[in-house]
Amino acid sequence: MDCTKCGNPKIIIKKEQSGQYLCKDCFIDSIEKKVIKTVRKEKLLDKGDKVLVALSGGKDSVTALEILNTFRQMNVIDICAVTVDEGIDNYRQDGIDIAIRHAKRLGIEHKVVSLKDTYGITLDEIMQKENHRGSCSYCGVFRRTLINKAAREMGATKIATGHNLDDEVQAIMMNYLEGNTNNLTKLGAKTESEAEEFTVKIKPLREIPEREIGLYVVAKELEVHFAGCPYAQQSFRKEVSEHINQLDEAHPTIKYSTLRGYDKIKKALKDEFKNDYAHGRCEKCGEPSSNRLCKACSFIEELTGD
Amino acid sequence: MDCTKCGNPKIIIKKEQSGQYLCKDCFIDSIEKKVIKTVRKEKLLDKGDKVLVALSGGKDSVTALEILNTFRQMNVIDICAVTVDEGIDNYRQDGIDIAIRHAKRLGIEHKVVSLKDTYGITLDEIMQKENHRGSCSYCGVFRRTLINKAAREMGATKIATGHNLDDEVQAIMMNYLEGNTNNLTKLGAKTESEAEEFTVKIKPLREIPEREIGLYVVAKELEVHFAGCPYAQQSFRKEVSEHINQLDEAHPTIKYSTLRGYDKIKKALKDEFKNDYAHGRCEKCGEPSSNRLCKACSFIEELTGD
Repeated sequence: MDCTKCGNPKIIIKKEQSGQYLCKDCFIDSIEKKVIKTVRKEKLLDKGDKVLVALSGGKDSVTALEILNTFRQMNVIDICAVTVDEGIDNYRQDGIDIAIRHAKRLGIEHKVVSLKDTYGITLDEIMQKENHRGSCSYCGVFRRTLINKAAREMGATKIATGHNLDDEVQAIMMNYLEGNTNNLTKLGAKTESEAEEFTVKIKPLREIPEREIGLYVVAKELEVHFAGCPYAQQSFRKEVSEHINQLDEAHPTIKYSTLRGYDKIKKALKDEFKNDYAHGRCEKCGEPSSNRLCKACSFIEELTGD
Repeated sequence: MDCTKCGNPKIIIKKEQSGQYLCKDCFIDSIEKKVIKTVRKEKLLDKGDKVLVALSGGKDSVTALEILNTFRQMNVIDICAVTVDEGIDNYRQDGIDIAIRHAKRLGIEHKVVSLKDTYGITLDEIMQKENHRGSCSYCGVFRRTLINKAAREMGATKIATGHNLDDEVQAIMMNYLEGNTNNLTKLGAKTESEAEEFTVKIKPLREIPEREIGLYVVAKELEVHFAGCPYAQQSFRKEVSEHINQLDEAHPTIKYSTLRGYDKIKKALKDEFKNDYAHGRCEKCGEPSSNRLCKACSFIEELTGD
């Protein structure tokens, strides 16, 4: 088969959902066009935005940075990046180095923020504690808090994450299965936060399947951190992911139809359950919080007694 | 282990979702109480209702009839039943005979209605046609139409079907995966129809897992038709059902949490997308229809040219 678009006989992918065969250049082009389409359709960017890319150095965030940079080149937005150092030995430093090199290559402002500097404890140290709640609970909360802080400090108007189609559909299905309608109001292409102090989050890659992002970084020869987190667990997410991928084999448009359906459901849920969060502040760090302490500070209190 | 409720050492089931061990009598009691709870919570019955049970003779509809009959014995409602003869040789007659015996045993009005008498063609004959669309498409549409007609003719105010928890969760997940928000507004405990001429449908067994209904009919020694339909196919429903059952093994409350989440989503969807169906009538049979012909009559036209 030759490339469906240009006739080039060197094919690198068959797109199961559309039946197209694509060569390297047409594949790269198709991914970039699709991300730009998502950005336009979902109104993810406003002219003059300063977008903070949450840049771990993995394939997803590097791709998000790479494609958002085209909007920067057109002077539509400015871009900066932040990398969170959770403090995981023999794992995180490689990602940080890669992130630093990408920021330098593109000439963008970049910051590395660490759990150790902010909270005086690393994830490795947390995992030594007897009363820990599992790595992912801490990592998610601390990372979110550090990225939100960095966004404010760097004057960012949006935070872009590398969530891909698979991540998004997994989250949707997990919440359908758990019946968590509250979480279901919070997913989606653009997460406008209940508290004004939280910067709006955008997911420009949410319509790109994970395997296509893997192929994109290879095709574009982008340096990425491919190692998996040593604390990654056999989680509910992984289980759900396997079921979705099995269904996807016989029904290659199923991830897209799930996403489209969810987008309609989200709209209905948001109108039905208007958020009425308390817009308070954490007593300790001043971050937005509906309780006395924000989640990050209450974890620290539990872990260290501080 | 002894029965968690009465101490009887003869256990017939461990309920994975609650961890309870139950003896035969306590199990039967638990099923009946749970159905009664669903009926009350969802307001499925009004005093004076005449409920038409769609009685195939299979385990689900026989259980629905049996438990709804307790409301009849308390003089809350009247009950009648209808059995649809699709015209499937070496299969349907056994179910019809069982349905007739149950109706006779309980002393309720019962009617057998057939595709042949109504449309002049059996499902077996349809499946001989070269241009058929697969047995399930026809069966679903014709059965629904015949049951709706029977409800009006018998003066029923509600139609009860035997849909169990597994059936309901499968339908919910299929529509999530297909992104079919229109269908998602139509599932649920009580299907109020867009057209007044369609009788309200209720699903009293929607919180009972399929395997517990199987055990219930065995425990109560109810005669049921256990044979599977010869036309049953390897369908999307079956695929989805297998994935849900695998998830259920490690997460025994997952069917319930999916159901609860869906019930909240349905409410939001109904408010968001108000139905504005054309309330017309089928030119040929006079049934409610938004097109010139109702689905059943358009199938017949396609199949027979009539």
